Amino acid sequence: MDSMMMDSMKSMDMMPGMEAMDMALMQACMDACSACEQACTVCATQMMDCSPACMNCADMCNTMMRAMMRMQGMTPAVMMSMLDACMAMCQLCMDMCMKHEAHSEVCRMCAAACKACMDACMAMRASMMAA
Amino acid sequence: MDSMMMDSMKSMDMMPGMEAMDMALMQACMDACSACEQACTVCATQMMDCSPACMNCADMCNTMMRAMMRMQGMTPAVMMSMLDACMAMCQLCMDMCMKHEAHSEVCRMCAAACKACMDACMAMRASMMAA
Amino acid sequence: MDSMMMDSMKSMDMMPGMEAMDMALMQACMDACSACEQACTVCATQMMDCSPACMNCADMCNTMMRAMMRMQGMTPAVMMSMLDACMAMCQLCMDMCMKHEAHSEVCRMCAAACKACMDACMAMRASMMAA
Amino acid sequence: MDSMMMDSMKSMDMMPGMEAMDMALMQACMDACSACEQACTVCATQMMDCSPACMNCADMCNTMMRAMMRMQGMTPAVMMSMLDACMAMCQLCMDMCMKHEAHSEVCRMCAAACKACMDACMAMRASMMAA
Repeated sequence: MDSMMMDSMKSMDMMPGMEAMDMALMQACMDACSACEQACTVCATQMMDCSPACMNCADMCNTMMRAMMRMQGMTPAVMMSMLDACMAMCQLCMDMCMKHEAHSEVCRMCAAACKACMDACMAMRASMMAA
Repeated sequence: MDSMMMDSMKSMDMMPGMEAMDMALMQACMDACSACEQACTVCATQMMDCSPACMNCADMCNTMMRAMMRMQGMTPAVMMSMLDACMAMCQLCMDMCMKHEAHSEVCRMCAAACKACMDACMAMRASMMAA
Repeated sequence: MDSMMMDSMKSMDMMPGMEAMDMALMQACMDACSACEQACTVCATQMMDCSPACMNCADMCNTMMRAMMRMQGMTPAVMMSMLDACMAMCQLCMDMCMKHEAHSEVCRMCAAACKACMDACMAMRASMMAA
Repeated sequence: MDSMMMDSMKSMDMMPGMEAMDMALMQACMDACSACEQACTVCATQMMDCSPACMNCADMCNTMMRAMMRMQGMTPAVMMSMLDACMAMCQLCMDMCMKHEAHSEVCRMCAAACKACMDACMAMRASMMAA
């Protein structure tokens, strides 16, 4: 996510509670979701037993990324529920891809992208709890 | 979702715990997600203050529907987390559209589709807890 | 797509040329896209050599369906270009799934859904050319 | 798209004709699609008259990006048809957002992202014609 575009998001009206969000963490989280969607999409085309989890993870990460870009249609409580779902899905996808890390470079990169996405979601969720 | 296609899903390998799912409830839930995605997509184009919530809800419902079709890449715990996120998003979208029910027939239909989707997700989640 | 929701779409403002579209054909086309997305999503999880084409077809059909629901952001020329892309993708997915029709019921159903979607897109495109 | 992930894509089996694609142009095109999806998603939440076109453009760009990541399920002919649809959609979205460039910074950035995506698709299409 481009930082100029990010700045412009801040100027739009938001729902109560959303204006307190840490925009730097959110930008990092959107980028991690985007990278994870891409890694999962490539990994899913390998047609290994992780593929269906990768497809689910790609869709969930795209939905999560878009939701962070639409703060006008979101509350902190719904955002946290979606972050939980996204972290759970990333964890499952990572676990499945890790089983192939010895022989598939794509799975290894996909697992790393899932881990980075999970961490970014966790950091964002923690900052929302603290707010 | 076509019942013949649904039957064929049952014959694929699933992760532990997924084979116990109530397929009739899941079929109803997928159909409710699909209807909700469609209603939200139409409602979002009205460019009212519910639009961003409708866009989020359409994406979440599509992701939820697809995840139910890929039981090979899902565990009961992750499924429940996604159902929670989907219900939370439908509730928010419904609440925002309900404010316009007096003057927008589209918002009234969208709120009804969100309610039906929420109910279907709840029924499915309850059956998973009981299993 | 619910016919009441469909009726309400007609009352929204449209771009020049879009108001001449045959709404019955469009409703049939949206339903065929939705059914095709679902069939392709299930078929893709089988992890056969048709899976990547099924994933592409599921995404294209969802994008096509949503575009038909947003006639405020569309012109006849762009719609026809998207219909061409959707038909081309459905044809490829159908061809790949047909190779497995003897031993996979899911592939057979997916090919049928692709064929139906292609036909519905063709009918809609033809009516737009005639308008 | 990460260049290491991109390299790994090249090692997967592809359909006839796809192996001749210019991978540097494709990487640039995927990145432009991703940036355009993000800009359009933000722009759509402004609820201006460009919003429905932005929603369509976001969906088409995501579908285009994912299709480039799944070269196992694609032929050059289908890819060119999808590139045509993506360019047509980007052009329309750009035209609508350009009307607001004087008073909306978000629309100006969205129009620029649409233009960059159109150019990247055009470069890729031209290289495919030459191949």
